[in-house]
Amino acid sequence: MKKIPRTMKVSVLRGVGEVAVEERPVPEPGPREVLIRVTAVGACGSDVHYYEHGRIGDFVVREPLVLGHEPAGVVVGRGSEARAHEIGQRVALEPGVPCSTCEQCTIGQYNLCPEMRFFGTPPVDGAFAEYVVLREDFAYAVPDELSDEAAGLLEPLSVGVWSCRKASVGPGARVLITGAGPIGLVATQTARAFGATEIVVTDINPTRLALAAELGATSTIDVSEEDLADSAFEPDVLLECSGAPRAISAAIRKVGRAGRVVLIGMGGDEIPLPLAHVQANELEVTGTFRYANTWPTAIALAAGGDVDLDRLVTHRFGLAEVERALTIAKTDPGVIKPVVLPQVARA
Amino acid sequence: MKKIPRTMKVSVLRGVGEVAVEERPVPEPGPREVLIRVTAVGACGSDVHYYEHGRIGDFVVREPLVLGHEPAGVVVGRGSEARAHEIGQRVALEPGVPCSTCEQCTIGQYNLCPEMRFFGTPPVDGAFAEYVVLREDFAYAVPDELSDEAAGLLEPLSVGVWSCRKASVGPGARVLITGAGPIGLVATQTARAFGATEIVVTDINPTRLALAAELGATSTIDVSEEDLADSAFEPDVLLECSGAPRAISAAIRKVGRAGRVVLIGMGGDEIPLPLAHVQANELEVTGTFRYANTWPTAIALAAGGDVDLDRLVTHRFGLAEVERALTIAKTDPGVIKPVVLPQVARA
Amino acid sequence: MKKIPRTMKVSVLRGVGEVAVEERPVPEPGPREVLIRVTAVGACGSDVHYYEHGRIGDFVVREPLVLGHEPAGVVVGRGSEARAHEIGQRVALEPGVPCSTCEQCTIGQYNLCPEMRFFGTPPVDGAFAEYVVLREDFAYAVPDELSDEAAGLLEPLSVGVWSCRKASVGPGARVLITGAGPIGLVATQTARAFGATEIVVTDINPTRLALAAELGATSTIDVSEEDLADSAFEPDVLLECSGAPRAISAAIRKVGRAGRVVLIGMGGDEIPLPLAHVQANELEVTGTFRYANTWPTAIALAAGGDVDLDRLVTHRFGLAEVERALTIAKTDPGVIKPVVLPQVARA
Amino acid sequence: MKKIPRTMKVSVLRGVGEVAVEERPVPEPGPREVLIRVTAVGACGSDVHYYEHGRIGDFVVREPLVLGHEPAGVVVGRGSEARAHEIGQRVALEPGVPCSTCEQCTIGQYNLCPEMRFFGTPPVDGAFAEYVVLREDFAYAVPDELSDEAAGLLEPLSVGVWSCRKASVGPGARVLITGAGPIGLVATQTARAFGATEIVVTDINPTRLALAAELGATSTIDVSEEDLADSAFEPDVLLECSGAPRAISAAIRKVGRAGRVVLIGMGGDEIPLPLAHVQANELEVTGTFRYANTWPTAIALAAGGDVDLDRLVTHRFGLAEVERALTIAKTDPGVIKPVVLPQVARA
Repeated sequence: MKKIPRTMKVSVLRGVGEVAVEERPVPEPGPREVLIRVTAVGACGSDVHYYEHGRIGDFVVREPLVLGHEPAGVVVGRGSEARAHEIGQRVALEPGVPCSTCEQCTIGQYNLCPEMRFFGTPPVDGAFAEYVVLREDFAYAVPDELSDEAAGLLEPLSVGVWSCRKASVGPGARVLITGAGPIGLVATQTARAFGATEIVVTDINPTRLALAAELGATSTIDVSEEDLADSAFEPDVLLECSGAPRAISAAIRKVGRAGRVVLIGMGGDEIPLPLAHVQANELEVTGTFRYANTWPTAIALAAGGDVDLDRLVTHRFGLAEVERALTIAKTDPGVIKPVVLPQVARA
Repeated sequence: MKKIPRTMKVSVLRGVGEVAVEERPVPEPGPREVLIRVTAVGACGSDVHYYEHGRIGDFVVREPLVLGHEPAGVVVGRGSEARAHEIGQRVALEPGVPCSTCEQCTIGQYNLCPEMRFFGTPPVDGAFAEYVVLREDFAYAVPDELSDEAAGLLEPLSVGVWSCRKASVGPGARVLITGAGPIGLVATQTARAFGATEIVVTDINPTRLALAAELGATSTIDVSEEDLADSAFEPDVLLECSGAPRAISAAIRKVGRAGRVVLIGMGGDEIPLPLAHVQANELEVTGTFRYANTWPTAIALAAGGDVDLDRLVTHRFGLAEVERALTIAKTDPGVIKPVVLPQVARA
Repeated sequence: MKKIPRTMKVSVLRGVGEVAVEERPVPEPGPREVLIRVTAVGACGSDVHYYEHGRIGDFVVREPLVLGHEPAGVVVGRGSEARAHEIGQRVALEPGVPCSTCEQCTIGQYNLCPEMRFFGTPPVDGAFAEYVVLREDFAYAVPDELSDEAAGLLEPLSVGVWSCRKASVGPGARVLITGAGPIGLVATQTARAFGATEIVVTDINPTRLALAAELGATSTIDVSEEDLADSAFEPDVLLECSGAPRAISAAIRKVGRAGRVVLIGMGGDEIPLPLAHVQANELEVTGTFRYANTWPTAIALAAGGDVDLDRLVTHRFGLAEVERALTIAKTDPGVIKPVVLPQVARA
Repeated sequence: MKKIPRTMKVSVLRGVGEVAVEERPVPEPGPREVLIRVTAVGACGSDVHYYEHGRIGDFVVREPLVLGHEPAGVVVGRGSEARAHEIGQRVALEPGVPCSTCEQCTIGQYNLCPEMRFFGTPPVDGAFAEYVVLREDFAYAVPDELSDEAAGLLEPLSVGVWSCRKASVGPGARVLITGAGPIGLVATQTARAFGATEIVVTDINPTRLALAAELGATSTIDVSEEDLADSAFEPDVLLECSGAPRAISAAIRKVGRAGRVVLIGMGGDEIPLPLAHVQANELEVTGTFRYANTWPTAIALAAGGDVDLDRLVTHRFGLAEVERALTIAKTDPGVIKPVVLPQVARA
């Protein structure tokens, strides 16, 4: 077992468009926390958004912030009362720790906890770092079947699992997925794993649509060429992953009687809702905010081969290259999921 | 038992703004239908809308149409195979008869049946008539505790029951009701009957707000004087009965974590939905289209005294006065529910 | 298209242990019925039970009865108002037709309709016949991917689908299935299709256990050699398909916190329920009675390859050999599902 | 504010049938705990059971134990991080504190937490004491409308709330309640508050049946005189509060199609379950183990007057009289709920 150093390298967002590696003390785990050497961290669209705009809605970056909330790693230290994991255990990290005692937590929807501390969200530092600490029950042992990168990508997979639960996707479901970015692609796979038998995915990027087809879409529509309204497909579930306001409204109008609409993509403060269609068909419309109690299911799906997370990884970067990980999607349409490998930076 | 005549009087909408009494043959019940002498029929906002505009959305009045879909009556004839009711039985009429064999019907959501035939909706005649026929299982025996008028108003009460079910209103619920017209007032009462302990009702009509308070609202807000946004009330349920697009959006923004929003009021094709708020709080938003399987519950609530329907009746008209029943709300702010008494016209 | 004859051959249960082929008139379809030439019919344990005992519970065979309720066929005639299928359409038959208008039917649980007329259940004749009639909406078009035999076995598959719905089997579920007869084997496959990632199947027949493993069980237990109580497996779902009273109680004791127990196997009037265990773990225990709204899902699963029904067919018989189809399981431990092919008898 | 002494009196169960008052140190609240001066504690059947038998199932009294788990009191001290309540706040105590971090806790069913520490359950001391400490979020502020005794009886009321939730009792429900002891009587009231319109209560004690009628039962049956099987009542919900095995089976047989059965009364290790009836009607049978997230609802119902808890209190005792509180039901058939008032003992 490698000795734990006193200090570590972290990648810090110092201001809009400014990222730098800094040396910081390795954190000490609290009594029920574990210290984790981070092996892989996915880069997410919200990381990019903080980098470009310095804020997401009410969350404003006022102090230097470490981004990154899709991490995997190895337990290398334990607090005085931590018993859940042995030293050396490979783990996936659920990156948000709630208070566990408020009303939201006790009724099982801890994702809505007002005291949530979430990685890479001001003022809480994330995982673009060599080491992090985490409450032990939010670190999940991962089986050998899962690579480090896949273990990190259990986080976006959790978004897919949560969305399919919200939408009550089940055997025989007909699902429309708008947007074939990383979330749309995990949603495609989870919809299939939940038993959906028709899965139509839309996007304007042919590479992404091809990947969607490979990962389980039964049909794809390039909406730069074809109008969704012209499709004969009548889904009973819409998983909206694009965040484009007019596209959302058009997609909702496709959903049939008693259908469920889950709004996952961030589309700003307000969107148009086709009220008469929602009423005439008694659609159920909801949005997702992170997830709760999803890691065990996500691990089971990924380890059992129902979902392929490694297939999403298109680029890899060291800790010193986080800025490139956050900007490459601007220039390369082939990017799906860039991953940061913090242990590589030191080399 | 009064002899059944060959012909009867009906009130017919001949065109926009034109209603007249006509003489028509008394209808013959089909094998599993009953013939009902109509005793009372509530006049509804949608009747008014057809009278004023000749259409509601895709439903267009192309032929003369009998309006009225909140009827009560007495069984006076039975088809060859009808066995559910004795002659003389007082009944409430569920005014929409589905096909009973399509997918929507067999899964229990017959209100979404595409073959639904609904009273007073083109091209199906309604109940502003001395007699109507109805499939026997859509006529419900009513107990003596219920007046004829209350029996008719089980129809709007069904909207309240359906809405509270959709919203999962239960003991301890905190409910915001926007709009204190007839639907808002039945929703107030059903929310209370479903166990809600805080019920805040908004409107701009002080008379209606006073009635809401009398019928169970724990607090009322006159939104012509006070901004809903300033209220400290954080509901977990919104029953939207106003149909006013900007008011809907403002009301949704009041609803707290994991709250449910039921859009009952007709508000046109599209409204603004506060997406970020819906997502951050994982609100569940749905709309209602009529109701299914509500009459037994509505009867139990009204007969047991949990809901007072007679209190809603403010005006009564004979069959020859349907036009006044449809226009009085324009001039008299004290109108809640006008009722048409078809047997009075003959006199 | 073959001409429809005036008479047909049917296999009739004349009394306990007495089956004979008779000549009867081909039935005429009612207005909304179709006439179906039967191509394949699975033989079920309940057929065997009627053959051996002349009754199942309150259902007593008092008149000669045609058995068989797992049929597939081809539409060869239509009633005056039947429009759902073209002549020549291959169909699977849902073998129970409810009244469609009672309370149970209108709330979507038509399997509990007191007026249900179910094939091969006194006094309603079944499908061990060359032709049958059926209400058109209970005949389902089947795609080319499904063989005739598989189309018939959508009936037992429906039991599996219904059971998994009742048990809320979903991704990541840990399922214990007791009994690896035809129902246990379809339950194994549906549990997998619903996303279960651990499926343990018990039986005392090694051939059946081997088939369970082939069809998706992640582990099997021969309970003639190993005590279920000794297994470390803690399921969150039990699908009980054995009907053996003491085994049921032992299996329920394995189910963990908030687990669901679905009792599918017929186990007589009363069984012992481990109350303290049910309470301490708040288990939800229910039983199934046939199914409702399962054919579309069953077709999607079988046509998409998630479930293999052909693999269950071990023996085939002509219409003249129904008695052997009902008795072979007594002597041949390798029997899973015997199928009767009514068109073969004539040859 | 009264000064807090160093020591306090507690009532200790020293062995089977042996209770004595002892002097013990007043406990110190942990960081997030509050110190509570106990004002009233209901005596429960399980307290009696420990007194008489020294055990309940696997829970065995091996050390001296303080009983009592239905307490109310006043906050008189706070740990270093406790912020939820001011000194002097009257509170009801939820008497079981879970770990808040295990799987059961995070999915919202903390009553099934394997690390639960529950008052008056070996080895955790209860509230027959002058002072207790409690995690602050398990103490609930009570409004002035509630007496101290009623605040304590929110605990049995929580059992009623939990049971009605498990049974999905709603408006129009028909509920059978077997057993009119304290739990049956709160169940009667909660069933009414949840909207049930028919509530039939059975017992063999006429006093209790009379009280049930007073508190909301629409009908009562003295099963020492009348056979439940002869009643025409067909409930859709059974709340079983008697714990008598044969009575349970008979009661389940009364429940109609798709009915729900909640087994609340402790009836030993095993009971007979009428399997064929459960299957033919697809009954849902479950048991309750304490409750989760019920105090806010219980407070709303009691404070709003929907439930009358004071009416249940028939006897009051000081801390020195706990033994009489535990034995009086043996000799006095008029006992419903004895309450212990710990502050009285000192006098």
